[in-house]
Amino acid sequence: MNLILIHPHEVKDGVVRLVDRRARHLAKILHAQTGDTLRVGLLNGLLGSGLVREISREQAVLEVTFITLPPPPSRLALILALPRPIMLNRVLSQVASLGLKRIFLINANRVEKSFFSASSLAPAALEERLRLGLEQGVDTIMPEVTVHPRFRPFVEDYLPTLAADFPTRLLAHPDATASIEQQFSPSPTAGVLMAIGPEGGWVDFEVEQFHLQGFSNFSLGPRILRVDTAVPALISRVEQLLSYPTEKR
Amino acid sequence: MNLILIHPHEVKDGVVRLVDRRARHLAKILHAQTGDTLRVGLLNGLLGSGLVREISREQAVLEVTFITLPPPPSRLALILALPRPIMLNRVLSQVASLGLKRIFLINANRVEKSFFSASSLAPAALEERLRLGLEQGVDTIMPEVTVHPRFRPFVEDYLPTLAADFPTRLLAHPDATASIEQQFSPSPTAGVLMAIGPEGGWVDFEVEQFHLQGFSNFSLGPRILRVDTAVPALISRVEQLLSYPTEKR
Repeated sequence: MNLILIHPHEVKDGVVRLVDRRARHLAKILHAQTGDTLRVGLLNGLLGSGLVREISREQAVLEVTFITLPPPPSRLALILALPRPIMLNRVLSQVASLGLKRIFLINANRVEKSFFSASSLAPAALEERLRLGLEQGVDTIMPEVTVHPRFRPFVEDYLPTLAADFPTRLLAHPDATASIEQQFSPSPTAGVLMAIGPEGGWVDFEVEQFHLQGFSNFSLGPRILRVDTAVPALISRVEQLLSYPTEKR
Repeated sequence: MNLILIHPHEVKDGVVRLVDRRARHLAKILHAQTGDTLRVGLLNGLLGSGLVREISREQAVLEVTFITLPPPPSRLALILALPRPIMLNRVLSQVASLGLKRIFLINANRVEKSFFSASSLAPAALEERLRLGLEQGVDTIMPEVTVHPRFRPFVEDYLPTLAADFPTRLLAHPDATASIEQQFSPSPTAGVLMAIGPEGGWVDFEVEQFHLQGFSNFSLGPRILRVDTAVPALISRVEQLLSYPTEKR
């Protein structure tokens, strides 16, 4: 926990009283003491500092001020075939820590149907994993996650409007021969929409549907990566290309 | 498991008899049947295919042929401040799946001393995690992992010889103002040696020691990433720069 994330309604006259896992974490893991100054953030607001007034395992009282902007959000939005629950939890924290703000969890032929009834998809569970990612990445802006249990309504009804906002649309696909650099426009200043498939990849019908929406296939190479490795690796490449476009070749 | 990894001594007259977790995985997870052809690899050797002759939950008998080279190894070697055991296990599989072949697990001021007595550092435990990564990434070449429980002997005695093999030496450090692109030579064809610090980062003395060995600081930005997010993100960037060097700016 590199940031204590505070909900606006928790602040009264510049003071916050924490009684949940945050207080325990401050006391037991960070060994915070009275007089320490800690990094705090207001959910969907500014970053700042918190002066510890009281601290025990039961509660922490902080005097808080909020002054600086959170880091800039990523310009990348992610469409992700729903992974198994344990991976979903891990990946949600990863993408939140990396600064992504829009995540679309979708169905696909090779997604097990049972994943959509997992308790980790409950709104409170999703928010908890995203909060952990924000606390890790020192950010306050809660990502928006939407869940799309049916593939066709997603690609046919939802995706056309969404895709219009993103000039660069990338489909991670192990069979692709192009690299991500080859599918990238030279100086993209607008957003990127990237779709990452399930274990086993997208089926042909799904690939065709994404192509109809202007997506281009790319591959990171011959290695097959687990989703918690592939997601940060792919995001990191897109971020690099957004910051340092290469010549198209 | 995208690859069944086989030790050379397990092959007799082109036939392999599996009786361990690989047989169970084939039967229970992959639902392999007699007559199926599966991807196999010889540890530290070629990739090939295995024809299923017999299959049950207790054993699988495969007729194997080995014909193609494994994917090219990464030119990146990784120095990693030893993470906590659960993270170490995850990261070892990640780096093996990403094709790294040399990993140096070192001590640092902010590494908890107890991590060096973890059972996950036993040679058999390390190899097991690396095998999982090779099976995931469809590779056969076992990475070399060395463990260095004392920082000074590592940097003073071991690192000078090691560093001489790597013209590009990068130190991931949150305080750095340079990006990884700025620290990269325009067209590197040789290897890259990258050092990633512990939670909380390197201390000043450690940074100085790496500088003495020709390392340059860089940062991915203001966000603090967990090691299982930072490692694939950083490796992916280096791989991209090795494949598509940007102009130095």
